[in-house]
Amino acid sequence: MSENVETREGWLSSDDIETMRGRMPIVYVEAVPVRADALGMITHVGLLLRPMPDGSISRAIVSGRILFNERVRDCLIRNLEKDLGPIALPRVPLCPAPFTVAEYFPDPSVSGFHDPRQHAVSLVFLVPVDGDCQPSQSALDLAWLTPDEVVRPDIRAEMTSGHERLVRAALAHAGCLP
Amino acid sequence: MSENVETREGWLSSDDIETMRGRMPIVYVEAVPVRADALGMITHVGLLLRPMPDGSISRAIVSGRILFNERVRDCLIRNLEKDLGPIALPRVPLCPAPFTVAEYFPDPSVSGFHDPRQHAVSLVFLVPVDGDCQPSQSALDLAWLTPDEVVRPDIRAEMTSGHERLVRAALAHAGCLP
Amino acid sequence: MSENVETREGWLSSDDIETMRGRMPIVYVEAVPVRADALGMITHVGLLLRPMPDGSISRAIVSGRILFNERVRDCLIRNLEKDLGPIALPRVPLCPAPFTVAEYFPDPSVSGFHDPRQHAVSLVFLVPVDGDCQPSQSALDLAWLTPDEVVRPDIRAEMTSGHERLVRAALAHAGCLP
Amino acid sequence: MSENVETREGWLSSDDIETMRGRMPIVYVEAVPVRADALGMITHVGLLLRPMPDGSISRAIVSGRILFNERVRDCLIRNLEKDLGPIALPRVPLCPAPFTVAEYFPDPSVSGFHDPRQHAVSLVFLVPVDGDCQPSQSALDLAWLTPDEVVRPDIRAEMTSGHERLVRAALAHAGCLP
Repeated sequence: MSENVETREGWLSSDDIETMRGRMPIVYVEAVPVRADALGMITHVGLLLRPMPDGSISRAIVSGRILFNERVRDCLIRNLEKDLGPIALPRVPLCPAPFTVAEYFPDPSVSGFHDPRQHAVSLVFLVPVDGDCQPSQSALDLAWLTPDEVVRPDIRAEMTSGHERLVRAALAHAGCLP
Repeated sequence: MSENVETREGWLSSDDIETMRGRMPIVYVEAVPVRADALGMITHVGLLLRPMPDGSISRAIVSGRILFNERVRDCLIRNLEKDLGPIALPRVPLCPAPFTVAEYFPDPSVSGFHDPRQHAVSLVFLVPVDGDCQPSQSALDLAWLTPDEVVRPDIRAEMTSGHERLVRAALAHAGCLP
Repeated sequence: MSENVETREGWLSSDDIETMRGRMPIVYVEAVPVRADALGMITHVGLLLRPMPDGSISRAIVSGRILFNERVRDCLIRNLEKDLGPIALPRVPLCPAPFTVAEYFPDPSVSGFHDPRQHAVSLVFLVPVDGDCQPSQSALDLAWLTPDEVVRPDIRAEMTSGHERLVRAALAHAGCLP
Repeated sequence: MSENVETREGWLSSDDIETMRGRMPIVYVEAVPVRADALGMITHVGLLLRPMPDGSISRAIVSGRILFNERVRDCLIRNLEKDLGPIALPRVPLCPAPFTVAEYFPDPSVSGFHDPRQHAVSLVFLVPVDGDCQPSQSALDLAWLTPDEVVRPDIRAEMTSGHERLVRAALAHAGCLP
């Protein structure tokens, strides 16, 4: 997951975050950005290339911590714009329930989702994106891959933390898992 | 549910439909059309005014039979365009699973969903609509009501067949049930 | 999908079924039977071995046509008992919505789900089973495989019609796709 | 939501909790406990009577904070046993995704879900319970109400914090909203 050093209200120092991370679960949203055709079939999945908590540079989905007093919907929009740029035009889902929940632990054996910094509970959404996207901030690249490409072993090997499982779960949810 | 006398390939006479209706369940799609804001919050629900299978003129959601060799996604688009016009711009959901299934029976006591003509199994979707809508074909009117309005007793009393329960289930699914 | 020659009320001859199969979609339920531990984690997936519509003997999930005037829940129970025996003790889901919808077509290229006999729209459920199971009627065998085993290429190759995709979609839905 | 003063590892003092509550969202699980018949139809909803964060004594669903390094499934079991007793035999859902997410804010106007102490993000599950239940710890009573009873205005008026909306959303999800 990405490090959100910016805070909306400046109320939380880096020290504070570090302290809390060792003591309680942190709640995140994550989004699998996709292109869909007029019938709602996924044509491409968007993967960022960026530094990950485990120290690697990996392909990854959109991710960010929910801030104090921030709604899940606002958090989704904020992080999609942060990672895909201001004119990505994401369509936030109507339903507040995520399609899956990923539980990241410092110990990678607990759930298969791994974050060496913290215990994070992440609400994961599938988000169609209609506009122009460009990787921003910490992302080095953004690639749009077809469902067939994104499940190829070489692409899956370029994801860490469990993100490749989330991508396949998103495709399965949409009826598009090859 | 609306009577779909048109058939895509002309393969099914009215007599054939009547014969089958007494012998096996017929599969339908239904859609609760909504307007949503940029955050994905429902602002309005679209209700048609039209003749219903029970002989009443009622407010109703979009509904239609799945044709032979027709995909669910195509059927959704076809019926949304039939009822809301060709420039309604519905956003078909990515996920092939409906948010609920309504089972209509000739006996209204079985499930609360009633169709005197047939046993119908209906896949019900929540569909945001972005474009201009105008009631077409058999619909007499199309009204856009807020979530608060649509659950008012007088509005609920204008729906039959169980549609008012589907509308409230759609709002609950979207976290917007007042 | 299995051939359900039995009819609850004797109202439909084999000829009638054949006639309708060429004219309109037939609605099915399917179930991925699983064993789960006390925390709700899937430990095993149950796969039948049986003759399939394409003429093969394959591993398959539970499947059956919804009869006239039969509720989805009753149909699920009836087919689970038919395929797994009378003391399988399936726990029918509370939610009437399937986790996915599989659309089977005579043309295998349309959706990847293939039934040479018909266009079938199938509501697919994930069903935990607590009791003793024994394959009955047309099934030759019932095997319980772990999630890791069931996604192995050799096991996947023993499924046809698209069932191996449904099994992986079920595992993804439950957060257990390896 | 209930106050979880116990901590699994004794790592968090009351002061620490208070400090964090003012600075970041706290992640919760909540469960609507239900009795279901053999077909999976909800017959009764279980409501606790207990002190609430707003100072009232109200009817409420099961609720508790996710502890550091605790899995969602373990947290569900722990809180169901805490509130319903050790032999309630809850059936934890297979799917890790909640049926809805409730966002509680100190300001009740933001989402309609209100917690004067904190911003809480709650994953809400529908959980069938098969065993004997008895209210434990801080709960004063446990009542099992039919779907018709639980949506009566007088019963709804006995719930605060938005719990009555969650109960109706749970019934809608299960196709049982009257």
